[in-house]
Amino acid sequence: MPNKFPALRVEGELNREGVGLYDKMNGVGAHEVIIETPNHDETLSNLPPKYFEDVLWAYRDRMLDLKKDIRLRYAMIFKNHGEAAGATLEHPHSQLIALPIVPHLVAEEMAGARDYYNRKERCIFCDIVHQEIQQGERIILENPEFIVISPFASFSPFESWILPKRHAAFYEDSQVYEIESLGRIFSEALRRLEKVLDFPPYNFTLHTTPFTERSLEHYHWHFEIIPKLTKFAGFEWGSGFFINPTLPEEAARFLREQTL
Amino acid sequence: MPNKFPALRVEGELNREGVGLYDKMNGVGAHEVIIETPNHDETLSNLPPKYFEDVLWAYRDRMLDLKKDIRLRYAMIFKNHGEAAGATLEHPHSQLIALPIVPHLVAEEMAGARDYYNRKERCIFCDIVHQEIQQGERIILENPEFIVISPFASFSPFESWILPKRHAAFYEDSQVYEIESLGRIFSEALRRLEKVLDFPPYNFTLHTTPFTERSLEHYHWHFEIIPKLTKFAGFEWGSGFFINPTLPEEAARFLREQTL
Repeated sequence: MPNKFPALRVEGELNREGVGLYDKMNGVGAHEVIIETPNHDETLSNLPPKYFEDVLWAYRDRMLDLKKDIRLRYAMIFKNHGEAAGATLEHPHSQLIALPIVPHLVAEEMAGARDYYNRKERCIFCDIVHQEIQQGERIILENPEFIVISPFASFSPFESWILPKRHAAFYEDSQVYEIESLGRIFSEALRRLEKVLDFPPYNFTLHTTPFTERSLEHYHWHFEIIPKLTKFAGFEWGSGFFINPTLPEEAARFLREQTL
Repeated sequence: MPNKFPALRVEGELNREGVGLYDKMNGVGAHEVIIETPNHDETLSNLPPKYFEDVLWAYRDRMLDLKKDIRLRYAMIFKNHGEAAGATLEHPHSQLIALPIVPHLVAEEMAGARDYYNRKERCIFCDIVHQEIQQGERIILENPEFIVISPFASFSPFESWILPKRHAAFYEDSQVYEIESLGRIFSEALRRLEKVLDFPPYNFTLHTTPFTERSLEHYHWHFEIIPKLTKFAGFEWGSGFFINPTLPEEAARFLREQTL
């Protein structure tokens, strides 16, 4: 099989059609820890705005640097906060894992967005932004550049998404005023979540366009924040379905109406 | 859109092609709790063989009964043992959730198995059984009817699969001697897991053919047992990839060599 991807080599037994029975990628990648503050007892949500922004700039700068390595196809930025959310270090930090492949959940999300675009000639995330602003009931926060929503089909209770209002495929192409604006709204979203849910463990992940793509009409970067309130158990393992007992409209109302 | 499935009705806005933008299924389903023993402090793994078998018969009997309801398309049998694995009741129990749709993870697994069958004219699970017996290094237990293995690409450390050696698409079509044999090997697999890992929380799920299918050449029922040793965190949420630090060959050796 011709090897189209410099980062992948195909190994293993070949079957009669000459197709690899299993493909083996080599071990190229990067795993970086972004230390959010020098102070062990601080939290990301309590950082002064300028420091929060610096974390967001660090995500961007590291992505732009890793993007130069043609063997890498995707960089996943994420944060595990609290032991139950998988944090193994106490000191406030986020992580970047750069991979020689596009993760299958990312590929699935992009394929879904492409299907929608092909049918409607509009970005599904832009449509979500407009619909949520129009309906209002799942909006947690809004500023001129971003909205924070409880998504209509939340996997998890109190799941929140932060989306730029302007169509933008790549996080790392954000402008200075956007990063400033994101820092403010992201920080407030976390502080509201912590006040409503009494400092829950949480994860967040950045969903952005793979390094291998050019700017896309159909994909739109966003952050997904998931407080760890339910367990990933037998039913989820077997089905891929998630049981969410909280209506997103109720979660959004609690988060929106919380006084800080 | 003609409604092919009696359990589904299609609602919502239609786009120009007359296709529903979102499909809404009605709330038909069943959720049953299988109480494994009258004794609150017993565990499934410590039940006498006859009682363990009775649990396996209960799974079968309930599936056969629910299968008569044409609105139901899949029954998921699973167990959450221990709080960290999502158990909300202490008393030993497993659960059955019957759904009006085939869960997407099940559909994906079946599609993968169908692809393999189309290329090879053999069931992939039968091939796994033969290959694991031949290689031996990932086998945990074996008897005339079943093998227990650490799968080659385990999601999770110490993940174990129990597969019938004979090709069988439907769990609920098992014969008496097979249920007896399964009870013995399943019980021993759990006891070994508990001894090696010091009574971990765990989940197991039955993977079997949907109610809507006839007997299939390409799909083969099995149980998947997953001890809760790692966290489902930001990287997993974002990528759908699972970080497993334990080689299946090592996990299998520990489990196989453990004295009971």
